[in-house]
Amino acid sequence: MAIILGDNQYGKAENRVVRIYRETERHAIKDLNVSTSLRGPFAPAHLEGDQSNVLPTDTQKNTVFAFAKSNGIGSGIEEYGLALARHFVMDIEPVESARIEIEEFSWERAVVDGEEHDHTWLRTNQEVRTAAVTVDADSGQHVIGGLKGLTLLKSTGSEFHGFLEDEYTTLEPTTDRVMATSLNAQWRFGELGLHWDAVYATVKRELVKQFATLHSLALQQTLWAMGRAVLEAVPEIVEIRLSAPNKHHFAVDLAPFGLENHGEVFIAADRPYGLIQATVLRDDAPPAPEAWRASAGLA
Amino acid sequence: MAIILGDNQYGKAENRVVRIYRETERHAIKDLNVSTSLRGPFAPAHLEGDQSNVLPTDTQKNTVFAFAKSNGIGSGIEEYGLALARHFVMDIEPVESARIEIEEFSWERAVVDGEEHDHTWLRTNQEVRTAAVTVDADSGQHVIGGLKGLTLLKSTGSEFHGFLEDEYTTLEPTTDRVMATSLNAQWRFGELGLHWDAVYATVKRELVKQFATLHSLALQQTLWAMGRAVLEAVPEIVEIRLSAPNKHHFAVDLAPFGLENHGEVFIAADRPYGLIQATVLRDDAPPAPEAWRASAGLA
Amino acid sequence: MAIILGDNQYGKAENRVVRIYRETERHAIKDLNVSTSLRGPFAPAHLEGDQSNVLPTDTQKNTVFAFAKSNGIGSGIEEYGLALARHFVMDIEPVESARIEIEEFSWERAVVDGEEHDHTWLRTNQEVRTAAVTVDADSGQHVIGGLKGLTLLKSTGSEFHGFLEDEYTTLEPTTDRVMATSLNAQWRFGELGLHWDAVYATVKRELVKQFATLHSLALQQTLWAMGRAVLEAVPEIVEIRLSAPNKHHFAVDLAPFGLENHGEVFIAADRPYGLIQATVLRDDAPPAPEAWRASAGLA
Amino acid sequence: MAIILGDNQYGKAENRVVRIYRETERHAIKDLNVSTSLRGPFAPAHLEGDQSNVLPTDTQKNTVFAFAKSNGIGSGIEEYGLALARHFVMDIEPVESARIEIEEFSWERAVVDGEEHDHTWLRTNQEVRTAAVTVDADSGQHVIGGLKGLTLLKSTGSEFHGFLEDEYTTLEPTTDRVMATSLNAQWRFGELGLHWDAVYATVKRELVKQFATLHSLALQQTLWAMGRAVLEAVPEIVEIRLSAPNKHHFAVDLAPFGLENHGEVFIAADRPYGLIQATVLRDDAPPAPEAWRASAGLA
Repeated sequence: MAIILGDNQYGKAENRVVRIYRETERHAIKDLNVSTSLRGPFAPAHLEGDQSNVLPTDTQKNTVFAFAKSNGIGSGIEEYGLALARHFVMDIEPVESARIEIEEFSWERAVVDGEEHDHTWLRTNQEVRTAAVTVDADSGQHVIGGLKGLTLLKSTGSEFHGFLEDEYTTLEPTTDRVMATSLNAQWRFGELGLHWDAVYATVKRELVKQFATLHSLALQQTLWAMGRAVLEAVPEIVEIRLSAPNKHHFAVDLAPFGLENHGEVFIAADRPYGLIQATVLRDDAPPAPEAWRASAGLA
Repeated sequence: MAIILGDNQYGKAENRVVRIYRETERHAIKDLNVSTSLRGPFAPAHLEGDQSNVLPTDTQKNTVFAFAKSNGIGSGIEEYGLALARHFVMDIEPVESARIEIEEFSWERAVVDGEEHDHTWLRTNQEVRTAAVTVDADSGQHVIGGLKGLTLLKSTGSEFHGFLEDEYTTLEPTTDRVMATSLNAQWRFGELGLHWDAVYATVKRELVKQFATLHSLALQQTLWAMGRAVLEAVPEIVEIRLSAPNKHHFAVDLAPFGLENHGEVFIAADRPYGLIQATVLRDDAPPAPEAWRASAGLA
Repeated sequence: MAIILGDNQYGKAENRVVRIYRETERHAIKDLNVSTSLRGPFAPAHLEGDQSNVLPTDTQKNTVFAFAKSNGIGSGIEEYGLALARHFVMDIEPVESARIEIEEFSWERAVVDGEEHDHTWLRTNQEVRTAAVTVDADSGQHVIGGLKGLTLLKSTGSEFHGFLEDEYTTLEPTTDRVMATSLNAQWRFGELGLHWDAVYATVKRELVKQFATLHSLALQQTLWAMGRAVLEAVPEIVEIRLSAPNKHHFAVDLAPFGLENHGEVFIAADRPYGLIQATVLRDDAPPAPEAWRASAGLA
Repeated sequence: MAIILGDNQYGKAENRVVRIYRETERHAIKDLNVSTSLRGPFAPAHLEGDQSNVLPTDTQKNTVFAFAKSNGIGSGIEEYGLALARHFVMDIEPVESARIEIEEFSWERAVVDGEEHDHTWLRTNQEVRTAAVTVDADSGQHVIGGLKGLTLLKSTGSEFHGFLEDEYTTLEPTTDRVMATSLNAQWRFGELGLHWDAVYATVKRELVKQFATLHSLALQQTLWAMGRAVLEAVPEIVEIRLSAPNKHHFAVDLAPFGLENHGEVFIAADRPYGLIQATVLRDDAPPAPEAWRASAGLA
């Protein structure tokens, strides 16, 4: 029995790139957080401290900023991520696989006297858009789009009852409750070369629509409806993974104070929270573990 | 020389109140974080553990939720805060002064097939609106409105040069830079009984307009323009305090890679950051230390 | 081609359990954050909103607190997690697999006049201990121990040079630098029934020792030494995964001010940071994807 | 009625200084977060964008790092803060007042085979030590020491009953509860030239001792005992301000599951929380508003 080195990777995390386009007086802005990871024959760096195959994380950082100028962001962060990942795998000899993860923070134009301003923006913070791109010498190119922290709430149209009970069950069933979540989703593309920004808008619109319009018997049911709608709307998406905290809003008992509370006053709880997670996919979608490998399976 | 008890106060912080209005099928939502503090003859609680004058913080919490139903939020969080503060001072015999601090989180209606939905919202997170209300048996009623974390950026129209230099100065002057901040502001009202939501919209609009349109020679100059514009637009505001981190965006040197960077690629830095703070007020505004006393002067 | 439901799970996250043992005047404390996830035949809840197989997350919460009393924490959080996971799989008919993830916050006894106090503690916050337990009707029982956020720094004994260079490389090699990380690690056990607290102390001690004593040519080399030492010290551990941000400390150039800086004054940078990740394992360790499946592979 | 500029100040916040002492093989470390603020005749910068009196925040940053080398930290962060503040007021002509705020993060030596290591440390994170120094051309020199986030818990020895009740009161009195807080404290010195690190150790020891040993009838009573003990132990401290969240630990009702809970199983709640704040001072302590002025009275 011997002790051996297993999966490993390294890179530069959280490069905060702000790219301004100023070809005309009407500027545009892209605000990104870019992380890189490289995989390949790096055992000597671990076993002997030999760096001869190691492209420093500092160089990866430089590359991220240089590509923001020379390549630009294109039709979406997925395109920029693909350019970076291809470069590392194709141009840097030892690198066998590259993973680029990007967060995008959105801005809207300042409105002054009813007109959108040319070079001033307000950060919106509604959700964070994400992309995760893998280019792999063996398995090819993989693109995952996503979003984080899209906080949704509906004040009616949600029920929860008919559940399994055991000796630890004290919950009362309900036919009308507040349902709220801070949605995380990631969707895998089966094709490249899309107009990424346009696809993103479609996905977000479908997620919101299903949350709003489905009369929900459980957050699970809502997630399924969301996932199915996205796959129906975007043929190039083959799989979507949804992770949704059930942000509990408990109706406050106002009876001791002589007041009725007909779904009007809630306390928004922090912890604990339900956490519901589901995958929706096409039945002919080939599995793609490489596409989802974020960090060598590491915490 | 004796050791004595000085300023003190106590309350319940961060009551997360969500208030749904559902009189019609088109619901409305208010999402608040409410903190209370009471001041008065509480020395016996400190010196001897005698609670006979102490209204428990748990009771304060109950009151916050009960008032969300019986009083409602009215034309703005300032009105709700005033109702709570008046109650504590007028109805609870020992209480001499009450401070209510409120954060409001904003939501926008979900849009489904081009129409705003009746009972589904997306949290916006652009800024947090604040209010701080003090009702004091001696000094009367004080209302401060505010906002936190309004993140603004302009990609041109900002200079910085002509500054004082000493032996530790290495900064180069610039005539074109990115200027960005995450603005915090608080404004004191000289009158009550306003339509608070309408005033808030006016103040935010003026802050954004000045940031966008002033060709800035320093963040100080921009703050002054913001403050003056707010006081000109809202006669009932007598003082505004602005605190603005200078969120540095450093142009990345791409020359080593054979690339030019004409204000196109920046790294958004975390720390350190400049911090610029200024007060703008009417010269006949009476000082109001009680209005600003957040927490017994405590850290 | 059809759209189908894939992997899914649900549970109650972040139950903040504090367990006091007070059989004698010398109390003991365990401070935990417990998350549960159940897997099984929950497709009807998604597809039709049918909850008949769904044990509510509220019931899972109740179970977590009840077991803190009836079972207790035992010789470590791994034991408590196993009890919970076994209960869900064995006692709740539809459940096929349960995942319990636990964070433990540590406390040390207050020292008063040189003596440890019986019932007063200070929270230490040095690192967070973790456990992840899976009990699966098919693949059996899996236990992973771990820690998060153990922040280590050495002010010498670290080099970095001889690395690969390309056209984006500007980094200078160094033979003496500050090396710092905020270590995350997870280790998989090949056996159950251990004295978990004792094993944890051994692992932490070995991680610290290797970081301190290895003259490091790269953070990769340090991680390998750490992992190997843990496997040598604890025969029951078959695999360890390490994830280590390289918390950069840049020497400040004081030459413009006529000062020399021989490794004395650094700026601690926030972002970006290197991120180095490695797995060390026994070559006869059977793969155990179920042990590492945190959340249905979801973000 | 005119609109005028009021209080203002500016500086560089959160300079992350790490200072290594390496005169011998046994290194020492100081890990600081330093913020500067300058006050003086800066109206032209606001009104006209004239920077001729403005020492850039970038220069302030350089000064902070240069002084970490040339002056060092001395017997505590208070001494380092005084050196910086004196420099700005005495050496930079327009500056009338300087405020330096410092956070210190603590590290302990790694222990390897029972011995403390010469150049490796673990960050402890138990509390953050603070200092706030003001040097003012008019009012002189002011030093405030402090700490943040010292989390304390006692599992018995705390009661709460006999409180005022009104129509919103539902709380049950208790004669045995968990009491926990995350203490913030700031203490003002009446003299300079102390051995600051030694004083800090004394203050922390007294705070912990009183929390542990006082049988508490209210958190207010505990704060008073803490404050009085600090002033009795350190004659040079003239005032202490304490701010203590009451971190609620609610006993979980296990009766529905046939279990008794005699103060053994608690849920640690996040929000809301009680917030108790008190000042303890010597009755001959002159008021010192300049000492406490953190940020022009700004939020």
